[in-house]
Amino acid sequence: MSTTTKNRGETVTSATPAADTAGVMPLLERGRTLATPVLRAAVHRLAPPMNTVAAYHFGWIDAEGNPAEGDGGKAVRPALALLSAEAAGAAPEAGVPGAVAVELVHNFSLLHDDLMDGDEQRRHRNTVWKEHGPAQAILVGDALFALANEILLEIGTVEAGRATRRLTAATRKLIDGQAQDISFEHRERVTVEECLEMEGNKTGALLACAASIGAVLGGADDRTADILERYGHHLGLAFQAVDDLLGIWGNPEATGKRTWSDLRQRKKSLPVVAALAAGGPDSERLAQILAADARKPEEEFADFSEEEFAVRAALIEQAGGRDWTSQEARRQHATAMEALGSVDMPAEIRARFVALADFVVVRKR
Amino acid sequence: MSTTTKNRGETVTSATPAADTAGVMPLLERGRTLATPVLRAAVHRLAPPMNTVAAYHFGWIDAEGNPAEGDGGKAVRPALALLSAEAAGAAPEAGVPGAVAVELVHNFSLLHDDLMDGDEQRRHRNTVWKEHGPAQAILVGDALFALANEILLEIGTVEAGRATRRLTAATRKLIDGQAQDISFEHRERVTVEECLEMEGNKTGALLACAASIGAVLGGADDRTADILERYGHHLGLAFQAVDDLLGIWGNPEATGKRTWSDLRQRKKSLPVVAALAAGGPDSERLAQILAADARKPEEEFADFSEEEFAVRAALIEQAGGRDWTSQEARRQHATAMEALGSVDMPAEIRARFVALADFVVVRKR
Repeated sequence: MSTTTKNRGETVTSATPAADTAGVMPLLERGRTLATPVLRAAVHRLAPPMNTVAAYHFGWIDAEGNPAEGDGGKAVRPALALLSAEAAGAAPEAGVPGAVAVELVHNFSLLHDDLMDGDEQRRHRNTVWKEHGPAQAILVGDALFALANEILLEIGTVEAGRATRRLTAATRKLIDGQAQDISFEHRERVTVEECLEMEGNKTGALLACAASIGAVLGGADDRTADILERYGHHLGLAFQAVDDLLGIWGNPEATGKRTWSDLRQRKKSLPVVAALAAGGPDSERLAQILAADARKPEEEFADFSEEEFAVRAALIEQAGGRDWTSQEARRQHATAMEALGSVDMPAEIRARFVALADFVVVRKR
Repeated sequence: MSTTTKNRGETVTSATPAADTAGVMPLLERGRTLATPVLRAAVHRLAPPMNTVAAYHFGWIDAEGNPAEGDGGKAVRPALALLSAEAAGAAPEAGVPGAVAVELVHNFSLLHDDLMDGDEQRRHRNTVWKEHGPAQAILVGDALFALANEILLEIGTVEAGRATRRLTAATRKLIDGQAQDISFEHRERVTVEECLEMEGNKTGALLACAASIGAVLGGADDRTADILERYGHHLGLAFQAVDDLLGIWGNPEATGKRTWSDLRQRKKSLPVVAALAAGGPDSERLAQILAADARKPEEEFADFSEEEFAVRAALIEQAGGRDWTSQEARRQHATAMEALGSVDMPAEIRARFVALADFVVVRKR
C-alpha cells in the first residue's frame, strides 16, 4: 500500500498513494492568504533596522531593500493552525493569531540556528547573519520571539493565555532540540532513539503546537488540544524523516540546497544513524569512513568530489538507512492518523487534516 | 541638598544625602533569599548542557563546574518586584514569580548583548560566549527568555497573563534599546535625546516591569501598575545615568570593569553625548579627538595609555558632561519620587520604595 522510489528528487514515500495532495494547495493558500498580512503587520511593528532585516529574512525584500516575491516556504504550519481552529468548531480566522505566532517562533529559530550552525544559504539566498551580520541575526530572532508572545497575549482572553503557554512549552522543546543537535556534532555515535528525540523536539514540537493552537484559541478543551498536539507531533516526525531523506537524496533545484547537503555538513540524520545501527559489512564500512571523515579539517572535507559523497550515500542506502527512514516516515504518518481518529470533528475538516498529512510525506522540498 | 564628589569610586550623586541606604540591604537580601531558590529551580529545568552554562553565567559554578559563591549582582530588580506585590496589598511572596521572570529576561539580554558587543568579561569572569562559545550564549539566552514566560504562565491566572503581557512589552523595548545601542556605534553623532530614549528602552523598561509586575500578580488594577511602571522607568534612567558615570569614573575594584571602561569601548554614553552637545572650546576639542578615535582600528585604540583616556575623561568633565549626568540622575530620581506620590500604599511600603531609589543613585558599582 505504499510507494518508495529511489531516484533523486522523486516521490520519497507515500502512505496513501491515491491521496489527493492537490486538494492541499487551497489549504496552504488559505493559510498564506489569511496569515501573511497579519504577519507582515506584526513585523512592521519592529523598530528599524530590525523591520528591514526581518523583511529580508521572510523574503519580502531583497538585500538592497527592493520589494521581492520571496519564497515564503510551504506554509504547512499556518494551514494547520487554521484547520485546528475549525476542528474546535470555530472559524478558521480564529486560528490566525496562532498561525502568526507559530510562524514568528519558527523564524526566530531559523535566524538563530543558521548562525549557530554557520549555514550561509536559506531559500536560495544569503542567511541573515551572512547578509546583515551576527548581531542582527541574534537581535531580530529575539524580537520575533517576543513578538510571537505579544501577538497572542494582546488578545487578552484566558484562551490566549493557554495558547501562549503551549507555544512557550513548544519553544522550550525547540531550543532543547537545537541543543541536542549541536551536541551530536561533537559525538562519534548517536543512537536512533536519540536522533528521534532530537527531531521530536526540533520539528515535532512546533508542528504539534500549530496543530493545536487554533483549537485552543477557538475554545477547545485541553483533551482535544492534547490529541491534536499528538497528531502534529507525529506529523512533525514524519515531516523530518522526509526532510532527512531530501537532505541526502533531494533534488537541489527543488530543495534550494546543494547536493548531498546533510552529508557535506556531516549531519547525523536519521538515514545515517539508522545505517550505522543496522550492522553488517556496509554499515561497518560506513562507520569507518565517517569516523575518518570526522577527523578531517572542515576545509579538506568541503573539497570532496560529488563521487566521494555519492559513495557515502550509496553505503547508507545499502546498509538500509534509506529504507528505514522511508518506513519511519510512514510509521509516524500512521501514528498521526491514529491520534486524529480519537477526536470528534466534522468529516470535511478531518479529511483536510488527512490531506495535509499526506502532503507532508510526499513533498519534494 | 545634594552631594557630588569628583574622586574616582566615590559617591557619585545623591538626591537625599541623609538617606538611610543601609535600610535597603534587608530589602535586597529579602529579594535574593526569596527569589534565588525559585530561580535556581527554574534554571535546573533546562536540559544539559544548558543548565550548566546558565549556572556558570549566574555564578553558581565556576568554569570547571565546581560550586561557586558567585557575585549575583545587586538584586535591585527582585527587591523591587517583591515590594511591588506589597504595594498592591499582597504578600511579598506573590511577587516571586515576577522577580524570577524579570531576572531571567535580564540575564537573557546579558547573554546575548555580551556576544553582540564582544564583551569578554562580566562580574570579574569570562562571559558565556568567551567561556562556552557563541552557540551556547545564543541558545541559553533563548532558553532563559522562554523560561521567563513559562514561570509566569504556569500560574494560570488572568493576572499572570497580564504580567506576561507587560513583561513581553518590556522585553521588546529591551531589544529595541540594544538595536539602538548597536546603531549608535556606527554613527558619528548621537543626540542627548536619542541616548535617553535608548537608555529608557535598555534599562528603564525592565526596571519599570520589576516595579509593577508584583503588583499585577498581587491583583492591582492597570492604573496602579502603570504608575509603578512610571516610577520604575525613571528609576531605571537614574540607575543608567549613574552607570554611565561609573563607566568612566568608577573604581575598577568595585565595578569589576577596567578603568575608563566605556571610553575604551568608545561608547556614546550620557556624559559623552552631553559634553559633545554642550558647545564651547572643551566640547569642540573633545569632538575632534573622538572623531579621530573613531577612525582608528580597534587594536591601535586598545593600546592607548591610561593618560590618553584620562585626557578624554577630563575634557568630558570640563565640558560639563559629568555634572550634567549627575544632575540627570537627580532629575530622574525626582520624577520617580513624583510618580510614587500618586499611588496609594502603606507609609512603610512607600518608605522602602524611596530607600531603594536612593540606593540606586548613590551606589558605587
